[in-house]
Amino acid sequence: MSLSELLTPCLLLDRGIMENNISRMQKHVTSQGASLRPHLKTSKCIEIAEAMTRGHSRAVAVSTLREADYFGSHGFSDILYTVAPPPGKLPHVMDLLARGIRVMVLADNPQSVEAICDYGRSASIKIPVLLEIDCDGHRSGLSAAPEAVIPLARTLSRSNGASFAGIMTHAGGAYDCKSIISICQAAARECAVVDHLALQLAHAGMKCPVISVGSTPTAIFGEGFERVTEVRAGAFVFNDLTMVNLGVCDVPDIAISVLTSVIGHREQANQIVTDAGWTALSSDLSTEKQAKDFKYGLVCDGLTGAPLDDMLVVGTNQEHGLVGQRHGRRLDYQQFPVGRLLRVLPVHACATAAAHGSYRVTDGSTNILGEWKRVGGW
Amino acid sequence: MSLSELLTPCLLLDRGIMENNISRMQKHVTSQGASLRPHLKTSKCIEIAEAMTRGHSRAVAVSTLREADYFGSHGFSDILYTVAPPPGKLPHVMDLLARGIRVMVLADNPQSVEAICDYGRSASIKIPVLLEIDCDGHRSGLSAAPEAVIPLARTLSRSNGASFAGIMTHAGGAYDCKSIISICQAAARECAVVDHLALQLAHAGMKCPVISVGSTPTAIFGEGFERVTEVRAGAFVFNDLTMVNLGVCDVPDIAISVLTSVIGHREQANQIVTDAGWTALSSDLSTEKQAKDFKYGLVCDGLTGAPLDDMLVVGTNQEHGLVGQRHGRRLDYQQFPVGRLLRVLPVHACATAAAHGSYRVTDGSTNILGEWKRVGGW
Repeated sequence: MSLSELLTPCLLLDRGIMENNISRMQKHVTSQGASLRPHLKTSKCIEIAEAMTRGHSRAVAVSTLREADYFGSHGFSDILYTVAPPPGKLPHVMDLLARGIRVMVLADNPQSVEAICDYGRSASIKIPVLLEIDCDGHRSGLSAAPEAVIPLARTLSRSNGASFAGIMTHAGGAYDCKSIISICQAAARECAVVDHLALQLAHAGMKCPVISVGSTPTAIFGEGFERVTEVRAGAFVFNDLTMVNLGVCDVPDIAISVLTSVIGHREQANQIVTDAGWTALSSDLSTEKQAKDFKYGLVCDGLTGAPLDDMLVVGTNQEHGLVGQRHGRRLDYQQFPVGRLLRVLPVHACATAAAHGSYRVTDGSTNILGEWKRVGGW
Repeated sequence: MSLSELLTPCLLLDRGIMENNISRMQKHVTSQGASLRPHLKTSKCIEIAEAMTRGHSRAVAVSTLREADYFGSHGFSDILYTVAPPPGKLPHVMDLLARGIRVMVLADNPQSVEAICDYGRSASIKIPVLLEIDCDGHRSGLSAAPEAVIPLARTLSRSNGASFAGIMTHAGGAYDCKSIISICQAAARECAVVDHLALQLAHAGMKCPVISVGSTPTAIFGEGFERVTEVRAGAFVFNDLTMVNLGVCDVPDIAISVLTSVIGHREQANQIVTDAGWTALSSDLSTEKQAKDFKYGLVCDGLTGAPLDDMLVVGTNQEHGLVGQRHGRRLDYQQFPVGRLLRVLPVHACATAAAHGSYRVTDGSTNILGEWKRVGGW
């Protein structure tokens, strides 16, 4: 099948770019002394999970229990679930454990720890728990102060309903960095926080089998991962314009794009109308506060994928995209007849991919190799 | 089933509020002399389509051919497809017509008109076409100048591959209005533009069987619809915080919400962490430029649905929501234990609903009446 036979809008995945992204990350993390635990939240696809774990322990991270179910049923049995479960989700966690899928869950407060211990005890199962540590004030997690962490680790390690599996942190603040140097510093801080804490826990008599850090920027620029046991990263598999702004990758390293058709011209506004609105691109404007604002995405030729001279999706409706020039140069409408195919590179790959049910896989040419499904929902 | 048994996050639909919203819009449009053509792009659900067309002609509007397929296979045979198709989608349109589903398509430029006429001729089918008119510079559509419209209407009416079905416009600019008076003016302008054009077309010897206007704000505040044949609206079925800011509805008129669980506390930031991030709420920030910014949504009690004193979702990660106080008042964390259910009212119902595969339908209490599926994709 050829790309020009696809109905638009749809999500394209360039397999070669993806393989290069995976290989680069695997090599870097390994060279720095840790194992990569690929996060499957960005791709949510079994074929991609297989590509991300080739020649690898198959330890993965997921963002939903639906993903844990799905990848668990495809032979992944070492799964870190990276969103702390409320008590209502513990029966689902127990079901997974009972199926032989080792799901580690997070907790970052005494109420959650107590709920997990109680549930595990009542279900006669030991739920493996990582304590989530806040290394940069970005999102969730316990303060890294030993007096906050050690009592909870002790409660877990003494419980009949849980086990203390270690500690994890997420350097989400790295997405706000303005330079590679500051990303390197964020990576060093991320490791230092959990490394220091693991030593304190060891002094208190508790081992940390897992010391987990990660985010795509800190994973790719971090050094000296010997002090942690694993590095998590997910968005690197596709990359996006946010990552370009961060210096993580270049535009040609972005593996996914939305294929769209020109459906009209808006000459008074110097814009082209396409059939990829926010349902296909997402409403994410993550580059708005970065060095270069790509609005809803960077526009490329549909057949070759080559970027088109700073053309951006400047506006979206539900099923309409409005394409304009960053610098306001007059568009030559003869170059953009109705029906011409364009591609839009995502500002945030996780959000754009989440808008689609599957990937149309290309080999870098206009050949479509197949369709790979995503697993959505919760 | 009770609401407290649902796994979070999920999308709730209060059926009673929805029925009231439908009834209000139906009554208003009918009282002003036109028929309502419900737009199914917001709800994308057969049960809701049936509720929106009870005692009605069953003429509907859709935003994708996937919706046209789906609702066509459920007995809806008068469908206005509101996104102009590129040539590659015409075989799909023809398939629908061949199945007896009368799909009207849009065109707003000579290239599209020519492509439709050519395709219809080659397929020996007459594709019904509405010319799309730009009434407010908001999105797509032909200039309302008769010299732009009449030649295309003539081409269509003389073609063996198409028929001229009439004209349509969308007052999308009404979403930027700052007062009800200006929405009323937008509604009057929207009708005047197509009414005037229909007269000019009649003078040129071409009848407009369909004269279609619409947007939720202009539909609910518009008066004197006798000059048009139909009014399209879709978002009214659920309403949202954007509509609250526009004066279209009040907070208790919002029929959908995202059910979420408290999963942690972020005391240093005076925030609560929940399990509804942007995958469940969308990244839409439509109220940011309106009178009152609701960020990612207004937080309510999970069981009663009562709004909680200006608590907003102030930040989102993929699967984490950060809930804070609009006015910075100290949160009482004892009121928000881990596991407490909350609901989030959407800033943009179309976007939030699009993040989910189904609705959990409530009767206004904590009873769950059933699960209604959505049709996604293209």
